[in-house]
Amino acid sequence: MEIITERITVATRGNSDVVNLTDRIAAFIRAHRLQTGNVMIFVSGSTASVSTTEYEPGLIKDIPEAMDRIAPRSHRYHHDDTWHDGNGHAHVRATVLGPSLTVPFDGGELLLGTWQQIILLDFDTRPRSREVVIQAIGK
Amino acid sequence: MEIITERITVATRGNSDVVNLTDRIAAFIRAHRLQTGNVMIFVSGSTASVSTTEYEPGLIKDIPEAMDRIAPRSHRYHHDDTWHDGNGHAHVRATVLGPSLTVPFDGGELLLGTWQQIILLDFDTRPRSREVVIQAIGK
Amino acid sequence: MEIITERITVATRGNSDVVNLTDRIAAFIRAHRLQTGNVMIFVSGSTASVSTTEYEPGLIKDIPEAMDRIAPRSHRYHHDDTWHDGNGHAHVRATVLGPSLTVPFDGGELLLGTWQQIILLDFDTRPRSREVVIQAIGK
Repeated sequence: MEIITERITVATRGNSDVVNLTDRIAAFIRAHRLQTGNVMIFVSGSTASVSTTEYEPGLIKDIPEAMDRIAPRSHRYHHDDTWHDGNGHAHVRATVLGPSLTVPFDGGELLLGTWQQIILLDFDTRPRSREVVIQAIGK
Repeated sequence: MEIITERITVATRGNSDVVNLTDRIAAFIRAHRLQTGNVMIFVSGSTASVSTTEYEPGLIKDIPEAMDRIAPRSHRYHHDDTWHDGNGHAHVRATVLGPSLTVPFDGGELLLGTWQQIILLDFDTRPRSREVVIQAIGK
Repeated sequence: MEIITERITVATRGNSDVVNLTDRIAAFIRAHRLQTGNVMIFVSGSTASVSTTEYEPGLIKDIPEAMDRIAPRSHRYHHDDTWHDGNGHAHVRATVLGPSLTVPFDGGELLLGTWQQIILLDFDTRPRSREVVIQAIGK
């Protein structure tokens, strides 16, 4: 059994941008010739999250809109008293969705559904360069 | 240390049905005589999630009702422009809750709270047969 | 590769108290001289969750306030018909955020962002003594 850790940088547009990471994760598994195990995807930062969705144009609009109802940008957040950076909503969203995801693989393939992609969600208010940790445990 | 992967099929009624998986997961750990480690539960699909709750009749109604306030079915979703299948709310809910959960075990027992059960939540609009991956790492 | 499991007790004030666990998790990794791997943090109980945030005074108020909009305490929950303990909102919040988190480490250090801390959120209506499982897999 092996543990392999890699850090990648992902450019986002912020503002609840949804970025499809699936191909990079699948390539990572293949490059290391892993057959069975799981891969953890973790975003280092407190205004972004990792999850899955069907990556299609409608949901890429629906998810930001839904997040704006769940934790509205227009609301007043105490966080602004500390930093005045206007991204309190981004922090709340990131805490609710969480920074990590674990996906199993077998036969060298991610065990995702056919219409299920791994996504990075960046809730911050500006384009960011995100550090994402990919860590596989398996053989 | 071993990695053991199993896929099970779980029948749901959809519409935010909450299914208790705890006994199946505990049986899986026992069947493989694992003592210490963790088990990951992952649902392959983008309209379902995995989490924990106290599995009792009140919460089994409260959770769907709460999800209908968090991401209302009645809202208009762009996802319907793509597929016209009326389940945009189900996708949003699944992204917010996430598809995977990891639970530790020790002494051959899941380290859940007394009133804490492992659940599959199916947000789709119809009964589904769900593929759930159970993967234990341990010894 | 090793698996190390430890259970710690964390005192909380309930009512969406947010407790910073980062130092304890970092100390656990150092104490066992682990270099590469990941650590899972799991709260045994169905009215608490684990996630990350920037641990600063503003967000420590924002997160409870946001959770009170997402799953209001004032709402009537069926859970109260079962137990009459007035914490239906706490259960719903815990299911949405989830009980577990996985954080990678490398070079003996947690791969968190600079302003990203590991937190326990206790949604129950009273102070609690929480059992939290910390489990590292690595070498």
